[in-house]
Amino acid sequence: MPGTAGGLALRICQFVSAVMGLCIMATTSDFPSVTAFCYLVAATGLQSVWSISQAIIDIYALLVRRSLQNYRVVSLFAIGDGITSTLTFAAACASAGITVLIDNDLNSCAHNHCLQFETATAMAFISWFTTLPSFLLNFWSLASR
Amino acid sequence: MPGTAGGLALRICQFVSAVMGLCIMATTSDFPSVTAFCYLVAATGLQSVWSISQAIIDIYALLVRRSLQNYRVVSLFAIGDGITSTLTFAAACASAGITVLIDNDLNSCAHNHCLQFETATAMAFISWFTTLPSFLLNFWSLASR
Repeated sequence: MPGTAGGLALRICQFVSAVMGLCIMATTSDFPSVTAFCYLVAATGLQSVWSISQAIIDIYALLVRRSLQNYRVVSLFAIGDGITSTLTFAAACASAGITVLIDNDLNSCAHNHCLQFETATAMAFISWFTTLPSFLLNFWSLASR
Repeated sequence: MPGTAGGLALRICQFVSAVMGLCIMATTSDFPSVTAFCYLVAATGLQSVWSISQAIIDIYALLVRRSLQNYRVVSLFAIGDGITSTLTFAAACASAGITVLIDNDLNSCAHNHCLQFETATAMAFISWFTTLPSFLLNFWSLASR
């Protein structure tokens, strides 16, 4: 939830995994040839920007001991979390589909950066998985007032 | 929401689009060679079974004019909706990634059933899109009591 230590920890996890996914994918030489990998770079970029801005808001709220349990703020955060987590999940699934295609179905891992693609996909999944509790808890606290 | 006419209409939309996606994908001859397309068949199959069972429960509730606003029932439905919609969305994204790879990046649509793959993917997306309000409304009504 916004403005708590647990929320801040979740935000930092999201940011770190999104940035790692972004860097690993962006350092492979052949990612621009596959649309889904470009989309993964864009989605993890958006996710990392969103997570770091949320983390900064959380740090500010913790420092000045201000509660962020305002209806408008929480609904804005819930909508943003919902959109970024959906985009990250979509990118992770598309990349996972293509990585599995290259690895299992075509057996052409030797000519490709399979390990890097798989790690970047896994990082995007971790980022989605840590955004999910933020979204569900924000949505729950929005509905229960 | 369960036990209402609007909920029943949503369930029927989900069922029809999931079954159409399943049939279109299953009638292409080369879907078993791609893991993501097999997964799409499995996910839309699960989605259609879930939606038709929910539709039958809705019809029963409408016929006997019984309210299904019980806490346990709604939480069970919300969890089921969440799981099936996530699986369908993951399958749709993975298939979309591979379809875009075949169509735009490799330009080898001539040797493949691109139109069928694209239609099946679109149907899976429609199915996810109609499951989303069911899930969000169930979750909301769960949180707001």
